[in-house]
Amino acid sequence: MKFMSSVADLPPGTVDVPRGLKGVVVAETEIGDVRGSEGFYHYRQYSAVELAKARPLEDVWRLLIDGTLPNTPAERATFCDEVRPLRALPPALASVLPAIARASDPMTGLRTALSLAAAERGCRPIYDVDPAARRADALFIAAVTPTILTALYRLRHDQQPVPPRDDLDYAANYLWMLTGTEPEPSHADAIKHYLISTIDHGFNASTFTARVIASTGADMGACVVGAIGALSGPLHGGAPSRALDLLDEIGTLDRARPIVTDKVLSGERIMGFGHAVYTTDDPRSVMLKQVAQRLGGPLVDLATQVEQTVVSVLAELKPGRHLYANVEFYAGVVMSLCGVPPEMFTPTFAASRVIGWTANIIEQAHDPKIIRPSARYIGPPPPEPVPPLL
Amino acid sequence: MKFMSSVADLPPGTVDVPRGLKGVVVAETEIGDVRGSEGFYHYRQYSAVELAKARPLEDVWRLLIDGTLPNTPAERATFCDEVRPLRALPPALASVLPAIARASDPMTGLRTALSLAAAERGCRPIYDVDPAARRADALFIAAVTPTILTALYRLRHDQQPVPPRDDLDYAANYLWMLTGTEPEPSHADAIKHYLISTIDHGFNASTFTARVIASTGADMGACVVGAIGALSGPLHGGAPSRALDLLDEIGTLDRARPIVTDKVLSGERIMGFGHAVYTTDDPRSVMLKQVAQRLGGPLVDLATQVEQTVVSVLAELKPGRHLYANVEFYAGVVMSLCGVPPEMFTPTFAASRVIGWTANIIEQAHDPKIIRPSARYIGPPPPEPVPPLL
Repeated sequence: MKFMSSVADLPPGTVDVPRGLKGVVVAETEIGDVRGSEGFYHYRQYSAVELAKARPLEDVWRLLIDGTLPNTPAERATFCDEVRPLRALPPALASVLPAIARASDPMTGLRTALSLAAAERGCRPIYDVDPAARRADALFIAAVTPTILTALYRLRHDQQPVPPRDDLDYAANYLWMLTGTEPEPSHADAIKHYLISTIDHGFNASTFTARVIASTGADMGACVVGAIGALSGPLHGGAPSRALDLLDEIGTLDRARPIVTDKVLSGERIMGFGHAVYTTDDPRSVMLKQVAQRLGGPLVDLATQVEQTVVSVLAELKPGRHLYANVEFYAGVVMSLCGVPPEMFTPTFAASRVIGWTANIIEQAHDPKIIRPSARYIGPPPPEPVPPLL
Repeated sequence: MKFMSSVADLPPGTVDVPRGLKGVVVAETEIGDVRGSEGFYHYRQYSAVELAKARPLEDVWRLLIDGTLPNTPAERATFCDEVRPLRALPPALASVLPAIARASDPMTGLRTALSLAAAERGCRPIYDVDPAARRADALFIAAVTPTILTALYRLRHDQQPVPPRDDLDYAANYLWMLTGTEPEPSHADAIKHYLISTIDHGFNASTFTARVIASTGADMGACVVGAIGALSGPLHGGAPSRALDLLDEIGTLDRARPIVTDKVLSGERIMGFGHAVYTTDDPRSVMLKQVAQRLGGPLVDLATQVEQTVVSVLAELKPGRHLYANVEFYAGVVMSLCGVPPEMFTPTFAASRVIGWTANIIEQAHDPKIIRPSARYIGPPPPEPVPPLL
């Protein structure tokens, strides 16, 4: 394992750690965990995959934020009644959203718009407000995100935003606001599976960003806006449409093995395969494959066969590397079948992950301590006298 | 030292570190360093304090971004000519800035506005662009920040923004855009000292945030917007006006000792004293005290005497704690004497620190590796079966 410092004689009181902080325990959490070697991850005490199958998104949202699943229809309704009105665009944001949409892709537009929405709401520093106000800010930020994202997408394509509908649940409403058409139940259910399965996933870069910002006591908006920035990075959330591009490139099954073999031999990375934490099947991929197969169709048949081909080529050419389909591979297929356009793949990921971020920010606020690491200076030794201008 | 994990049996491959990552070396850097026990910090190979005394801000900006000070008037002019036109507000941003200003304080407004400015410029993922484009984005982001901040302030107070003036240097232009009056040379010089001395300071929370976001390959705007969020947190950049509030509360010197003693005995923290890294005089405070004394006046006399009183009371009541005036104490005095209102203290800090952030983002891009730490799950053990609704 490569460590951060290139020299051995670190100053006293400093600690060397692996590059990228890999394996470095930066917090204790009750929100969830990823067991990479078991192909298992969970939200609180429940399997995330089982939650995606058994519950609507609102139940899981409540689990993340309040710590428990609703046990009765009345408990579920109370939470839904609380978050429903929070989905409306705040008026100042609504007035400038067309200008933001013209200048921005949906992810950078979300970054700007959510920053303004938090300001307009008056989100205050998380250490300065009581837990109820902090929770209310968290619910607002997550509730308004799908509305902002779908409005940005429509405005960019010269369509009017579609307001949220009170009679639709979170997942169905997302597709409704995006397309302006009431979604088929099978599509709403498929998107629900995707959204729930991507709410949280360990201390990825965006969740860690949210917690570093939260550690300064900044407001909920500041934390989430930073996390959106991290998720927009190609090494983090920026790849789901590239897996679909691979399927497009392959086109028909007979072309799969030669194209994939060529790519692997030329050192190209196969998008949608391999994961930093999973050394076995990615449980999100396994579930989304089932979801895709329930939807069916030629794209799903191609994807299933390409997956088998890629896994076998990789096992042959990269033995011992344990490369399997990751969440991106079937996520693109599922979203595409449900009518989500590729430019909205990463934004749709943001729409669910914001729930995980806000849960992490609330947890970080329980332990007010600023995160301030060190670096090792390796440049020319100071102090050199400052030269005058010649 | 308190470590992060509350248990001893961490899983194999994980590393326990001190809380808040204190002393954890997360990167190697050639940008600068802080030597807390020596009361010394530097930018590249030069003392930051000597740079603040000897050079205009543009020279230090070039040092941070390009690695060298200009050696001749022509080299200086080349850099100034390059950054000058980047200060203008982009048109889409200018059109919505009044709405942003009405909804936001200057820090949250900067977060929103800079996000939009980066989108409007078309800043692309830092790993996807060549070094020249990355540098150009960095210069733009830092150049436009003072224009945005001063415009936000003026719009909030029902004044028209004042455009940048080509014949004024960075520091003088900042006061010009803020007040609409050409500043006295002594004020421009004082603010220049403040701005240069706060450009960079080790791996503080905002700089670290910028680098975590940069590690995903996100665009320059995403990284800086996250850093602004961290700086807006009260535990990071949020306190400079509180040191001035202390002087207001004390009012006259005879009240200093009883008020300070009272506060310390009741466990209250004295704002503007003590620092996480310095165990001796904060070199920024020492320099800003000299700057303040050159400006002179009753506020400076009171501040100087209150500083002595606080240091002596703290030495007496908190022996061994090495509590001295930090950068905030005289920063508030200097900014106040130069006509910067308290609500602009932290934003003015952001106006200089953005140069340090962008230098750090560029450096992070040289080593593309995502920062993804771990956490330890301490909640109830999964998997609990997902219960049906009752």
